[in-house]
Amino acid sequence: MSAFDDLLAFQRQTEALSSVAERLGWDQETVMPRGAAEQRSEEMAAMEAVLHERRTDPRIGEWLDQAEPEDDEDQRILDLIARDHRRALQVPARLATELARQVSLSQGVWAEAQAKDSPEEFLPVLADILMLKREEAAALADGRDLYDALLDDYEPGTTQADIAALFDAMRPRLVALRDEVLGAEFQPRPLTGHFPQETQLRLARACATAYGYDWTRGRMDIAVHPFSSGRWQDSRITTRVVETDPFNCLYSTIHEVGHSSYELGIDPDYAFTPLGRGVSMGVHESQSRIYENQIGRGRAFAGWLYQRMSDAFDGLSVPGPDAFYATLNRVTPGFIRTEADEVQYNLHIMMRFDLERDLIAGRLDVDDLAEAWNARFLADFGVAVDRPANGVLQDVHWAVGLFGYFPTYTLGNVYAGCLNKAMRAAVPDLDRFLAAGDAAPAVEWLRENVQRHGGLYPPRDLIERAIEGPVSEAPLLDYLEEKFAGIYRL
Amino acid sequence: MSAFDDLLAFQRQTEALSSVAERLGWDQETVMPRGAAEQRSEEMAAMEAVLHERRTDPRIGEWLDQAEPEDDEDQRILDLIARDHRRALQVPARLATELARQVSLSQGVWAEAQAKDSPEEFLPVLADILMLKREEAAALADGRDLYDALLDDYEPGTTQADIAALFDAMRPRLVALRDEVLGAEFQPRPLTGHFPQETQLRLARACATAYGYDWTRGRMDIAVHPFSSGRWQDSRITTRVVETDPFNCLYSTIHEVGHSSYELGIDPDYAFTPLGRGVSMGVHESQSRIYENQIGRGRAFAGWLYQRMSDAFDGLSVPGPDAFYATLNRVTPGFIRTEADEVQYNLHIMMRFDLERDLIAGRLDVDDLAEAWNARFLADFGVAVDRPANGVLQDVHWAVGLFGYFPTYTLGNVYAGCLNKAMRAAVPDLDRFLAAGDAAPAVEWLRENVQRHGGLYPPRDLIERAIEGPVSEAPLLDYLEEKFAGIYRL
Repeated sequence: MSAFDDLLAFQRQTEALSSVAERLGWDQETVMPRGAAEQRSEEMAAMEAVLHERRTDPRIGEWLDQAEPEDDEDQRILDLIARDHRRALQVPARLATELARQVSLSQGVWAEAQAKDSPEEFLPVLADILMLKREEAAALADGRDLYDALLDDYEPGTTQADIAALFDAMRPRLVALRDEVLGAEFQPRPLTGHFPQETQLRLARACATAYGYDWTRGRMDIAVHPFSSGRWQDSRITTRVVETDPFNCLYSTIHEVGHSSYELGIDPDYAFTPLGRGVSMGVHESQSRIYENQIGRGRAFAGWLYQRMSDAFDGLSVPGPDAFYATLNRVTPGFIRTEADEVQYNLHIMMRFDLERDLIAGRLDVDDLAEAWNARFLADFGVAVDRPANGVLQDVHWAVGLFGYFPTYTLGNVYAGCLNKAMRAAVPDLDRFLAAGDAAPAVEWLRENVQRHGGLYPPRDLIERAIEGPVSEAPLLDYLEEKFAGIYRL
Repeated sequence: MSAFDDLLAFQRQTEALSSVAERLGWDQETVMPRGAAEQRSEEMAAMEAVLHERRTDPRIGEWLDQAEPEDDEDQRILDLIARDHRRALQVPARLATELARQVSLSQGVWAEAQAKDSPEEFLPVLADILMLKREEAAALADGRDLYDALLDDYEPGTTQADIAALFDAMRPRLVALRDEVLGAEFQPRPLTGHFPQETQLRLARACATAYGYDWTRGRMDIAVHPFSSGRWQDSRITTRVVETDPFNCLYSTIHEVGHSSYELGIDPDYAFTPLGRGVSMGVHESQSRIYENQIGRGRAFAGWLYQRMSDAFDGLSVPGPDAFYATLNRVTPGFIRTEADEVQYNLHIMMRFDLERDLIAGRLDVDDLAEAWNARFLADFGVAVDRPANGVLQDVHWAVGLFGYFPTYTLGNVYAGCLNKAMRAAVPDLDRFLAAGDAAPAVEWLRENVQRHGGLYPPRDLIERAIEGPVSEAPLLDYLEEKFAGIYRL
C-alpha cells in the first residue's frame, strides 16, 4: 500500500465516524426522548474526542508528506485532508470536546426557551457557547481576524470583507425593491384557513417526490428547526408544520430536499472521501435556495402546487393560480427569516451578519443581544419585534455554535441567481415540466453541473464552471426585480 | 488522579461510544432508509474498530495493575473492566470489525428473506456469520469449548453443561404438562377478529404505562423483530403488529418494557460505568419474562386487559374475563417462539440450543440447517413446519451472530419463576393492583431487589440475594403446573 492508500483508508474510517456523529445529531433533534439530553451530550463529546484524535493523528502528516498524487483529484483529496488536519491541530482536544458537549446541551435549552418565549433561559447558555466559539476562533485565527477564521469553516476562501462588500452592493437595490413593492397599489391577499398537519405532510412528500428526492436513501421527520442530515446512501430531511400556514411546511421541505439532493447527487465513487460531501455551505444553500425559490416559487411550479393544494384542502382562499402565485410570493414585514419572501430574505441575513460579527469581536455582549436585535430589526424592517420567539430566539444557529454560517445563505442566493440564469438558458422549456409538477430537468442540470462534483472544486470555481463565467450578484437582483415587478404590477 | 480514576474516566468514554454504537443499531432496525445498508455496515465497522482499540488499550492493563479499590463496588468495576479487556485482547481487531460489518449487513438480508420466505437468500450470509463466530469463539475459548466461550458473553459463569443439565431436568415435566393440556377436554377458544394497528399501538402504550415505563427516557417504534435498546437516560422499545393477533403486539411490548425497565431502573450513579447495565442476558430475560408472563399473563392483569381491549375493539370474541384469561394462555402447537405459550416456550429454546451447539461445533452445516430444524420441530412438537418463515427464518438471533444467546431465555424463565415466588410472598396483595392495571408494586419489588444493582453482583448471586435462597427450576415448573391445571381444569 502506498502512503496515499494508507491515508485514504484511515480517512475512510474517519468519514464513517463523522457520519455516525451526524446521525446522532439527527436522532437528538427528531426522535430522542427529552430526558436523554445529558447522556447525549456525553455521547457527542465522546464522538468528538475520537474524531479530534483521528484528525490530529501524527501519521496524517507523514502520509501527506509521502503521498504521491496521480492526478488533480488525488491532489484535491490531499489538500482537503491537509486543511482538516491543520485546523484540527489548531484546536485543543479539550476545547473541541467541550464544544461538542455544550452544543448538544444548548440545542435542547434553545428549543425549550423558544417554545416558552423565554430568552433568560437561553441567553446564559448562549454566552457559554460564544465564549467557547471565540476561544476556538482565536485558536484557528492564529493572529488573523476571529470572524474570518469561523467563516472559513463554512465557506473556505471567503472573508468577511468579501461578504461585507457583497452585502453593500446588494442592499440598495433590495431596499429599493422592497419599498416599491410594499408601496404598490396591488397587494396579494394572504392565504387563510386551517390546514391539517397530516394533509400538509402528505403534500410535502409529494413536493419532495416532484424534485426526485430518493426515498430509498432518505426519510422525512418533524423537527423544531428544519434541517437535513447525512450523505451518500442516507440523507434525511426534516420539516415543521404550522396549521395556519402550509407554505412554511412545504417550502421548508423543498429547501431541505435541495440540501439532501446535493449530498445524494454526489458521485458515489467519492463516498467516504473528503470529496464525498458538499463543498461549502454557500454552495449547499445555492441548491436549497434554487430548489425553494427560482424553481419552487416560480409561476410554473406554483400552478401545479395550486391545483394540488386546492384538491387536498378542498379549495383555497385565493381564486386561481395567478392569485395563488402572487400570494405565495407576498412581501410583508414578517419577523421570521425562514418564512421571509425572496426580497427581504437577504436583509435578515445582513442583520445577523452584523450582529454576529459584533458578538465574535467582543463588541456586543450576549446580555445586550436581544436589545440590539430589536433595535436593528426596527431600523431595517420598520417594525418592532413583538416577542423574543419572533426575534433573537427564532434561529437555532447560534445555539449550536454556527457563528459565521448566516452569510452563506445570501452567498447561496447569489450563486442560485447565477445558476438559475445558466440553467434557464440551457433548459429553455423547463417551465413546461415544472407546470406539471416535474422538477427533473432542473435537478438533472444541477446534478450534472454542480452536485455530482462534491468537494472536487473550490466553491467559487465550481459555480463559475457551471455558469461559464464570473459570479456576480447581478443575476439574482435582476431576477428579483423582474419577478416582483410582474407580481406587483410595478 | 489515581490509576482507578484514570481508568474510570477512560472507561466512561468507552461506555459512551458503546452506547452510540447501540443507538446506531436501533436506527438501522427502525428508521434507516433501506438503501443505506452498505453505508451503515461501514459505520458499524468503524465504531467497532474504535471500540476494539479502546478495549485493548495497553493503558488499561497498567491502570488495572495500579488501581487500588476502596470497596467491593470498586473491585467489581475492576473485575468487569478486566474481563472485557481480556476478551477484547483475545479477538483480533480485523475479526471484531469484520463481524460488526457482516452482522450489520446480514440483518437486512435476514429481514428481507423472512418477508419473502426465501431461505436461499439468507443461508449463505448465515454461513459467513457462522464462520466468523466460530473464529471468534476459537479466539475466546483458548483451547476450551467453543460454545462455552460464546455463552459466557451472555451469561458469565454459565457453561453448556449447566444449561444441558437444567434442560434435562425441566423437559420431562414440561412435556408431560404440554401433553396433558393438549389432551384436556376443555380447550379455550382462540381470539378472532380484526384488530387495527393504531388501536393495538394505543393499547400497547397503555400496557407500557401500566408497568411504569418512563416515556421521558424512552419511546416505542415498530421493528421486524421486537427488541429494546439503550440505557441510562434513553432505553427504547420496539414492537410489531399483526392485525389478526393483538396479543403479539401487546406482549412483545410488555416483554421489551421489562428489558428497558431493567436498564432504566439501574442506580443512576452507575451510568457510564460497567455497573450501569444489566448484568447478564439471563437476568435481563428474567425481567422481560416476569413482566410478560407471571405478571402480564396472570388472571388479575388479564381482567384489566380484557376490559381495555373490549372497550378499544368494541367487544371481543370471548365472553368475559375468565374466558379471556384462558384464551390468553391457550396452548397450541404453534411454530413461533415469541408467540409460544409459557408451557411450550422452553421447548422452543431447547431445540435452538441443540441446533446452535451443533452449528458451532461444526457437526451441522448451514446447508443442512433448515432440514435439521424441520425434523427436530416435528419430533418435539408433532407438527411439520409449513414454511421457512415459520421455521428456520423466524428469529433474528443467528443472523446477527447471537449464538449462545437462546439458553438465556429459559434461564430467564427459571430466574423469573424464583423471583415470582419471592415477590408474591413479599407483596401478597399484588393481584389487587394488577387487577386495576397497576403493576407498580411488582416493578418496585423487582427494581429494589434486582434492577437497581445493575452489574454489581454476578448473575446468580444477584438472583439468590433477591430470593434469599438457591436458584432452582422447581418454582417455575410448580407455577406452570398449577396455573395450567387451573385453566385447563386438569
